[in-house]
Amino acid sequence: MAAIKPSLAKGTRDFSPAQMEKRNYIFNTLKTVFKKFGYNEIQTPSFENLSTLTGKYGDEGDKLIFKILNSGDYLSKVSDEQLSARNSNKLIPYISEKALRYDLTVPFARYVVMHQNDIALPFKRFQIQPVWRADRPQRGRYREFYQCDVDVVGSESLLNEAEFILIYQQALQALGLKDFTIKINNRKILTGIAEIIGKPELIVDMTVAIDKLDKIGLDGVNKELLERGFTTMDLDILKPIIELKGNNEEKLQQLKTVLANSENGLKGIQEIEEVFGYVKTFASENVLDEFVEVDITLARGLNYYTGCIFEVKTNEVAMGSIGGGGRYDDLTGMFGLKGLTGVGVSFGADRIYDVLEELNLYPASNSTSTKVLIINFDKSIEGYSLPLLAELRNAGIAAELYPTAAKLKKQMSYADAKQIPFVLLVGDEEKETGLLSLKNMDSGEQIKVDRQQLIQYFS
Amino acid sequence: MAAIKPSLAKGTRDFSPAQMEKRNYIFNTLKTVFKKFGYNEIQTPSFENLSTLTGKYGDEGDKLIFKILNSGDYLSKVSDEQLSARNSNKLIPYISEKALRYDLTVPFARYVVMHQNDIALPFKRFQIQPVWRADRPQRGRYREFYQCDVDVVGSESLLNEAEFILIYQQALQALGLKDFTIKINNRKILTGIAEIIGKPELIVDMTVAIDKLDKIGLDGVNKELLERGFTTMDLDILKPIIELKGNNEEKLQQLKTVLANSENGLKGIQEIEEVFGYVKTFASENVLDEFVEVDITLARGLNYYTGCIFEVKTNEVAMGSIGGGGRYDDLTGMFGLKGLTGVGVSFGADRIYDVLEELNLYPASNSTSTKVLIINFDKSIEGYSLPLLAELRNAGIAAELYPTAAKLKKQMSYADAKQIPFVLLVGDEEKETGLLSLKNMDSGEQIKVDRQQLIQYFS
Repeated sequence: MAAIKPSLAKGTRDFSPAQMEKRNYIFNTLKTVFKKFGYNEIQTPSFENLSTLTGKYGDEGDKLIFKILNSGDYLSKVSDEQLSARNSNKLIPYISEKALRYDLTVPFARYVVMHQNDIALPFKRFQIQPVWRADRPQRGRYREFYQCDVDVVGSESLLNEAEFILIYQQALQALGLKDFTIKINNRKILTGIAEIIGKPELIVDMTVAIDKLDKIGLDGVNKELLERGFTTMDLDILKPIIELKGNNEEKLQQLKTVLANSENGLKGIQEIEEVFGYVKTFASENVLDEFVEVDITLARGLNYYTGCIFEVKTNEVAMGSIGGGGRYDDLTGMFGLKGLTGVGVSFGADRIYDVLEELNLYPASNSTSTKVLIINFDKSIEGYSLPLLAELRNAGIAAELYPTAAKLKKQMSYADAKQIPFVLLVGDEEKETGLLSLKNMDSGEQIKVDRQQLIQYFS
Repeated sequence: MAAIKPSLAKGTRDFSPAQMEKRNYIFNTLKTVFKKFGYNEIQTPSFENLSTLTGKYGDEGDKLIFKILNSGDYLSKVSDEQLSARNSNKLIPYISEKALRYDLTVPFARYVVMHQNDIALPFKRFQIQPVWRADRPQRGRYREFYQCDVDVVGSESLLNEAEFILIYQQALQALGLKDFTIKINNRKILTGIAEIIGKPELIVDMTVAIDKLDKIGLDGVNKELLERGFTTMDLDILKPIIELKGNNEEKLQQLKTVLANSENGLKGIQEIEEVFGYVKTFASENVLDEFVEVDITLARGLNYYTGCIFEVKTNEVAMGSIGGGGRYDDLTGMFGLKGLTGVGVSFGADRIYDVLEELNLYPASNSTSTKVLIINFDKSIEGYSLPLLAELRNAGIAAELYPTAAKLKKQMSYADAKQIPFVLLVGDEEKETGLLSLKNMDSGEQIKVDRQQLIQYFS
């Protein structure tokens, strides 16, 4: 077998130790918060039956699902006519019956339906696993990436929405973020707006247009609305809504006036107010004023969400949304279990990784797992060094003895490359006096410690 | 879209919260030990270029690799002749260029070669990720399962082998196992035995036969050896070796006599002795006598291993090996980087899971993440319960308020199903007296505590 120069599959990444520590730091921080709120972890398989995934993500999505070729003689189920037709797309179901997970939502729906007799409702789960999409890879977009979803199904209570605001706030603060905005909207408010204009059938066109306010400004939005079938009279009604000013309470008051004739619209406002009421009762800090913003231009996943909609942005770094979610009314209908309501949010792990990197927010102690490297001067000293090494590890301290008596320079480079913060020099002198030389690799400072002090130093 | 009854892809599993907690407990326990020994985590992508994987696992292995169908018009690269030939196997490279990871070893080799300029040798890594094999699913054999590998490359020192013995011992003890055997052999001893018989070319036949001693006994082994080209004279030489008696030291002494004329054989014995020397210096307990057993019938992965070979068995439960590994001399040659020696072991996570289950070794506190459920009697009490809930969570205690004032029975069932150990009853009386009723779901016992005592109770 000729040696081949290895490469990564397009759009995939290796995670080296330093990256893994940072990723684990993020995931562990998030998990700790999720668990405090009563959410438990589940995992689903990496591949599902193709029929489970097909038709759930639209035609474009279906194309981006990675299909797995059947094993063995996969052509045996294909007729000569089918083969000679050369229709790649039509042939798929005959040669592939499995596909890689495209998101965590559809597998979760499948999970809930299959386990409906074992789980207690409300069912609160989080799931942190990779998903795969056959997208064209580009900067920041990968074919394998992690999703991190938190959902509760089987509870209509708006307490859940309130808790998701707190989950966002506590998780992002635990990661060291200070300035971020949790935007909230409600699908029913959008419905109400479309109703008072008298064009409920154009709700999608309306929201697609006003969603672009940040990017193209009011003039741009108006232009697009006209193109999408709205009149200048409609624009007059929409203008004060799109340009809603003031704090959350003021915005909601203005909306109440504008939407006074829409039952849906008022219900949406009332839901947000109830969520806010819960948050106020809950938190001693002023979470609402500091982090939450009513934003009626927010419309993500409109065809999916039925109640509150969330999106989170950091204000410390230029970066798109780092999370979002909302209330949906029919997660499991696609698998025959109707009427199960739920609400959930997700965290954009890759973006959060980049944000923490840019803001230098990773804890220093995180930079390596090994805390001290014992330098190996010569084999004869191993009889002294090994019990010391055992002592360190027994105290829970990650430690290594360089495995051979290589040149000091080489051993120091090893400590450097692995970002080991301390090296311990144990030579004949140290062995005799019992005083060990501990060198701080960062400052170069060297101190003398006995074995007991050494352990204490790292504990 | 008609609702379909969902099912799992064949040979795959969902992991529900209780299973995830147990799995995480195992993985976290292992990781803690690996890190103490200076091993760092890496992750590689779930799929690799097909060319990276093909040809590394033999013809049978190649067939078991899950191939991913190219996206888009995957038939466009296939000629009419190729299509009409209907050769599923030959067609693969034209319609698939990616495949799912089959093990962690080949991706690790690819990783080392691609990152050779960034990593410091010796490079110590662990990796815990799923792998996929198109095996026929059966009891205990899945198409998606986790491997857990720990390897060091770029160091010849036998200190590494000694540390793997300690890693096994400490990891299994940390998981609560008491009685297990770490078997050790050395490829050079097997080479030596084949040499003194004068049939070095039959080493594979010899080891395949004597590896079955446990299953088919000495007579069976002898029968198989005769079939595989050995003579009755050879059997006379082999008999005392196969039936080696005594403790480790006695076994090694007997081997030294038998293998006196084989340089390879003596080198293998000496390597084991050096490893044992390290373990003795290292550990205050008598790890060798208690857990380590020289077993020259052990031959796993013979074509791969070049020095020490390990295999681990629990003696508390009838179960195959729960781990194994050894020294190899050419991990990365397949990718053009020659002469890089390494040694590594793996842990059989699924089997360890079953062993802990059977021995009831999972910590009780592990059975759920939520520690206390606050019963929701009526909406008016939420103003009292929510700050209390916040207080619990701020103290790091996983807690929930049932999200609606459902019937008490329903709320209790929820706590039961989720294995929440305590429920907190907060009614008007509690609100007035400040004394909360805390009920132990296991014993049924109910005590009165104030808020401060409540926090302390769970801290």
